[in-house]
Amino acid sequence: MPTHKAIVYDKPGEISTCVVEVETPSPGPGEILVKITHSGICHSDLSLMTSTWKFLAEPLKSGQIGGHEGVGVVTQLGPSCESSDIKVGDRVGIKWIASVCGNCAPCLLGADGVCPKAKVSGFTCPGTFQEYVLAPAHYATPIPDGMASEVAAPLLCGGVTVYSALKKSKAQPGDWVVIAGAGGGLGHLGIQLGSRGMGFRMIGLDVSSKEDFVRNCGAELFIDITKDSADEGEKGIAEKIRAITGGDGATAVVVCSASNAAYAQAMDYLKFNGTLVCVGVPGEGKPIEGVCPHLMVAKQLNVAGSTVGNRRDAIETLAMAQRVVATPFSIEKVSNLNKTFHDMKAGYLKGRVVLDMQSWA
Amino acid sequence: MPTHKAIVYDKPGEISTCVVEVETPSPGPGEILVKITHSGICHSDLSLMTSTWKFLAEPLKSGQIGGHEGVGVVTQLGPSCESSDIKVGDRVGIKWIASVCGNCAPCLLGADGVCPKAKVSGFTCPGTFQEYVLAPAHYATPIPDGMASEVAAPLLCGGVTVYSALKKSKAQPGDWVVIAGAGGGLGHLGIQLGSRGMGFRMIGLDVSSKEDFVRNCGAELFIDITKDSADEGEKGIAEKIRAITGGDGATAVVVCSASNAAYAQAMDYLKFNGTLVCVGVPGEGKPIEGVCPHLMVAKQLNVAGSTVGNRRDAIETLAMAQRVVATPFSIEKVSNLNKTFHDMKAGYLKGRVVLDMQSWA
Amino acid sequence: MPTHKAIVYDKPGEISTCVVEVETPSPGPGEILVKITHSGICHSDLSLMTSTWKFLAEPLKSGQIGGHEGVGVVTQLGPSCESSDIKVGDRVGIKWIASVCGNCAPCLLGADGVCPKAKVSGFTCPGTFQEYVLAPAHYATPIPDGMASEVAAPLLCGGVTVYSALKKSKAQPGDWVVIAGAGGGLGHLGIQLGSRGMGFRMIGLDVSSKEDFVRNCGAELFIDITKDSADEGEKGIAEKIRAITGGDGATAVVVCSASNAAYAQAMDYLKFNGTLVCVGVPGEGKPIEGVCPHLMVAKQLNVAGSTVGNRRDAIETLAMAQRVVATPFSIEKVSNLNKTFHDMKAGYLKGRVVLDMQSWA
Amino acid sequence: MPTHKAIVYDKPGEISTCVVEVETPSPGPGEILVKITHSGICHSDLSLMTSTWKFLAEPLKSGQIGGHEGVGVVTQLGPSCESSDIKVGDRVGIKWIASVCGNCAPCLLGADGVCPKAKVSGFTCPGTFQEYVLAPAHYATPIPDGMASEVAAPLLCGGVTVYSALKKSKAQPGDWVVIAGAGGGLGHLGIQLGSRGMGFRMIGLDVSSKEDFVRNCGAELFIDITKDSADEGEKGIAEKIRAITGGDGATAVVVCSASNAAYAQAMDYLKFNGTLVCVGVPGEGKPIEGVCPHLMVAKQLNVAGSTVGNRRDAIETLAMAQRVVATPFSIEKVSNLNKTFHDMKAGYLKGRVVLDMQSWA
Repeated sequence: MPTHKAIVYDKPGEISTCVVEVETPSPGPGEILVKITHSGICHSDLSLMTSTWKFLAEPLKSGQIGGHEGVGVVTQLGPSCESSDIKVGDRVGIKWIASVCGNCAPCLLGADGVCPKAKVSGFTCPGTFQEYVLAPAHYATPIPDGMASEVAAPLLCGGVTVYSALKKSKAQPGDWVVIAGAGGGLGHLGIQLGSRGMGFRMIGLDVSSKEDFVRNCGAELFIDITKDSADEGEKGIAEKIRAITGGDGATAVVVCSASNAAYAQAMDYLKFNGTLVCVGVPGEGKPIEGVCPHLMVAKQLNVAGSTVGNRRDAIETLAMAQRVVATPFSIEKVSNLNKTFHDMKAGYLKGRVVLDMQSWA
Repeated sequence: MPTHKAIVYDKPGEISTCVVEVETPSPGPGEILVKITHSGICHSDLSLMTSTWKFLAEPLKSGQIGGHEGVGVVTQLGPSCESSDIKVGDRVGIKWIASVCGNCAPCLLGADGVCPKAKVSGFTCPGTFQEYVLAPAHYATPIPDGMASEVAAPLLCGGVTVYSALKKSKAQPGDWVVIAGAGGGLGHLGIQLGSRGMGFRMIGLDVSSKEDFVRNCGAELFIDITKDSADEGEKGIAEKIRAITGGDGATAVVVCSASNAAYAQAMDYLKFNGTLVCVGVPGEGKPIEGVCPHLMVAKQLNVAGSTVGNRRDAIETLAMAQRVVATPFSIEKVSNLNKTFHDMKAGYLKGRVVLDMQSWA
Repeated sequence: MPTHKAIVYDKPGEISTCVVEVETPSPGPGEILVKITHSGICHSDLSLMTSTWKFLAEPLKSGQIGGHEGVGVVTQLGPSCESSDIKVGDRVGIKWIASVCGNCAPCLLGADGVCPKAKVSGFTCPGTFQEYVLAPAHYATPIPDGMASEVAAPLLCGGVTVYSALKKSKAQPGDWVVIAGAGGGLGHLGIQLGSRGMGFRMIGLDVSSKEDFVRNCGAELFIDITKDSADEGEKGIAEKIRAITGGDGATAVVVCSASNAAYAQAMDYLKFNGTLVCVGVPGEGKPIEGVCPHLMVAKQLNVAGSTVGNRRDAIETLAMAQRVVATPFSIEKVSNLNKTFHDMKAGYLKGRVVLDMQSWA
Repeated sequence: MPTHKAIVYDKPGEISTCVVEVETPSPGPGEILVKITHSGICHSDLSLMTSTWKFLAEPLKSGQIGGHEGVGVVTQLGPSCESSDIKVGDRVGIKWIASVCGNCAPCLLGADGVCPKAKVSGFTCPGTFQEYVLAPAHYATPIPDGMASEVAAPLLCGGVTVYSALKKSKAQPGDWVVIAGAGGGLGHLGIQLGSRGMGFRMIGLDVSSKEDFVRNCGAELFIDITKDSADEGEKGIAEKIRAITGGDGATAVVVCSASNAAYAQAMDYLKFNGTLVCVGVPGEGKPIEGVCPHLMVAKQLNVAGSTVGNRRDAIETLAMAQRVVATPFSIEKVSNLNKTFHDMKAGYLKGRVVLDMQSWA
């Protein structure tokens, strides 16, 4: 039985990974074997490894192979892959949702993230921090020609998620859309996709150090959340948004940050008929302040939860990103993974980090 | 100057009305004069009169003419009414929203209830508890031939509101839709409109005494909220709803009752992608329990606030109700209005009460 | 190798079938073997067998096993069927579209009928006129408990197709919807689904002998197309429709008949913003008369082509039909198949005919 | 009674206008008086004047004041204008549809162009080729601050019309959208609005001399319709469109040219589920070639007629155009109007021509 190298979480709860040798599986019916060349490092990997998501029913298990932003090359097709057009040598992406049943009510509606049989890369099935990974032929995402694999990798997670959320916002071209957490991994992609790809007029909310970054991504207005809280109270944000939108407020807000305050503020600056899209998940599980019936009714507001994008969203995101997204990233060797996680936890990272999955040594 | 009889609130904060003589205005440009023949008595009239809505910016003023479910006959057209097709002798209805500007952003989107210049019958402009009332020619609702005026009156308030909320639920024919407060003024109309008019499979939630009434309105399942709370805990409701819906839960719920508990329960029995429509407004102004980002995201749920229907909703509601709604009501003389309000407060009323506006004596 | 009985078209171009013995295949990965108990006989089977569809790229081949409205019991699961919930003993249906790739752009949008790899039962893959048929586990339609297999069979073709067309009509509950060919196999199901299931107000067009049948299905108005053409000219239809709809015309029309005249008339009685849904396919391939830019623009009309329903439509159709459809059908023995086709061609059939697929002998 | 100068068509059927003195009306209830400063000259004015639209029920009358792309300053408010926010001194635009009833079924659905009481500037009511014109306070379009009046004028006709058509195309950001007649008055605005405002990937079809212009407007692909017809047959267009769209074809096409060939070609290059939007109106009134039931069904295509935009579309168009549209225009004196019409007929004009309505000599 052939084997290959894989990175496992060896001490769940701590930042700790090690490289092990695992058996290389053969693709079963409808499956493909993918040789991973790049795998993005996402904050969710850190959260899983260090057990900071308290709302999970089951914690991460020791020995789990991590990673969920993988791009690689198809090296082998299992039987019965004809219904997909995939061929050996094609580049494909593996994302957070590794597979879905394709048959349940959510799947038939394109709500992949809600499929009860969905498997999550790097958590409930072996992830992309390894040399080879299995994937369903019909669920791997084709990488467009001309898009570098290291560019595609992080888009498969944050890009798809925020693209899908922007679609759920029901905003139309020309509408004002806010992203709370605009300088973060999802947010900065959302600003670019929204402004340059979808015709929205974007407003970014984040800490002041992100201002240039967020404006360069295409935000017409940046609001420093720290300054507003400190000097002017929360109302400052709403006032600034009302001013630039001609008094009405924003048509939608996508909250990418995991902050209760970000959620609470949102209700204040939405236009009548406006929509708050929930993406970021604060750990405490508290109700959103301001989502009171009398306020919801008075302005006919909407709140929508958005998990992840579906297969079609993934394809659309890569196609749109290829035209309108330029995002900073750095490439790290496998041996630097633990250090990268430490830097991530400390908040030292700028832009996404992609692991060179051929740098074992 | 001619005068006519009108019923005013003379002691806001208490149940008290008296009949006074007021000047009969002449219709200005675009206005019509309507001789009111029937006016429904709504719980909102009671709430306004007794100042129980704490969230109002300004309280009701003494001398306010009440009533907002009026039906009557056009007796005079002001100048410049040609753009409407209305004629002297036509029957028209006057509803909660008496007029809107027609020009603002909400109006251009059909969000009448959000128009900042909207006037409210019986609160911010003279209501329908009088012999004659002015109305904008383009905003009065034509009453369909063959529909009795006393039948139309209550539909103009509760019917339009719940019809509009059902539309905002995004439910499709064949979907399961819950109404919390199914035996109430809005709820029982919603059960009928939803089941017989819109193809939904309706589930009604209310106290046990309403069971027969709600089932006769077309609910396929009735759940006694008292029993569930007492014997089985809140989970009982969700379990029953999941059982009848094949495990998934309901596609939508319209909360017509002004109860925080009704709102909190709803999040528990909604299907993925499901929608909670807010209509009833609890007085306390608390956030809806369960509308937490991690729960909204996990099932991709939606919450939507719905104020009132717009002009088109009013026309559609009457047309649909004429085919599918049969609702119990009693007709009272003007002299019984105070007694009726007392009975309403005590919870003695069954069905809507409509005031015979030609029974002055 | 086990064998089983199958009915093949032995002389394409003529009404002729014969029973042969064929090898019983073993289900491959993701496939199930279904023992067919009932198979509806559809006019499309006749058209294929007798080569009357001139627009087909390739004609039917001799030896083709026919039938595409099959219901049966799962007797064997191939490997890798776990992602579906299907079990041995489950009843499932096989429809016109036997399988799709599930991965192409149309599939990702639920446009099953447009999938370039779609296989058609009884035409491009072995049909349901046999004892055993293979099906993809994820594409067979589960039959709801309590629905007789002989009832389900015809719904899988005409029912799903007309249900999907009604959805594409964009009509809302309360809207007037016309079905041209209302007494036919699709039409009578459409009248029932539309009126009792979807809240539409249905108008049926057909020859006079179908009037009672169509009215009993739920049509509020029936128009005899013969009488109108003969005595009053085509305008008669439009005038009757305008009269019952208050002058505006119908919101939508689904043309189920394969008649150029039916299409041409439709443009005349549609309301502004109305939609003509194309389902029936006249053989000649002529442009629809009346679909001229100046007329399309003047009333902002829409024309929409609808092939067949998708997987979700099939599930929804059976669920809705179980509540609202009662359709006449007769059960025939296999030995009567040729006679039935002759009767069908002669126009002698009333209602659907379902073949008892256990009546070999 | 005060008077002012106006330009009338004095010999309908010919290119001929003359300046006359007319009485200046006083604004009635809900009306405003607008002093026109600029009025665009549109091809529709030429068509009306020269009686080339054969499908009109009634021809233009001698003495009609022309013009329907007017911008001016409010000089007087009639009574009962309070419901609008308009003030003396505001700049407003007057468009093709001068007024609608606001009460009919089409108006309640925002289908302004279908209102049976709609009045058309310069055809069924006095147009904008005069010093002063009356307008309904609620129907004049506010001109955004910072947009020059001469820029706004042509947007009120072609801009609004093509914006509304692009919305009706149902295309989503990232989708490929074709404009046939891309270099024309509507087309070049559509390319800019679509590409820079709505996130579509635009393809322009026109004669070769328009290539640079159309590409500069934002088209990613330009196809010379002459060359394709001459050298390669009609298929050439479809092949080029399929090539750039990855084989599928375009999601939508808006036909702005009044050419039967443009319509016929469109059916050939649309993607499954695609939409052909009819805007241009060929004079002959022929059915669109290719809109045959079997083709509509096979690819599930859609055809949609689009008249003009509504009030909201007008506001949205100006807001979006202010950000993304730069369009060539020249300003002419009133004395050059006849010459301009002759140049227009001869095809000599480049870009829109706007009449300086203060240049009466």
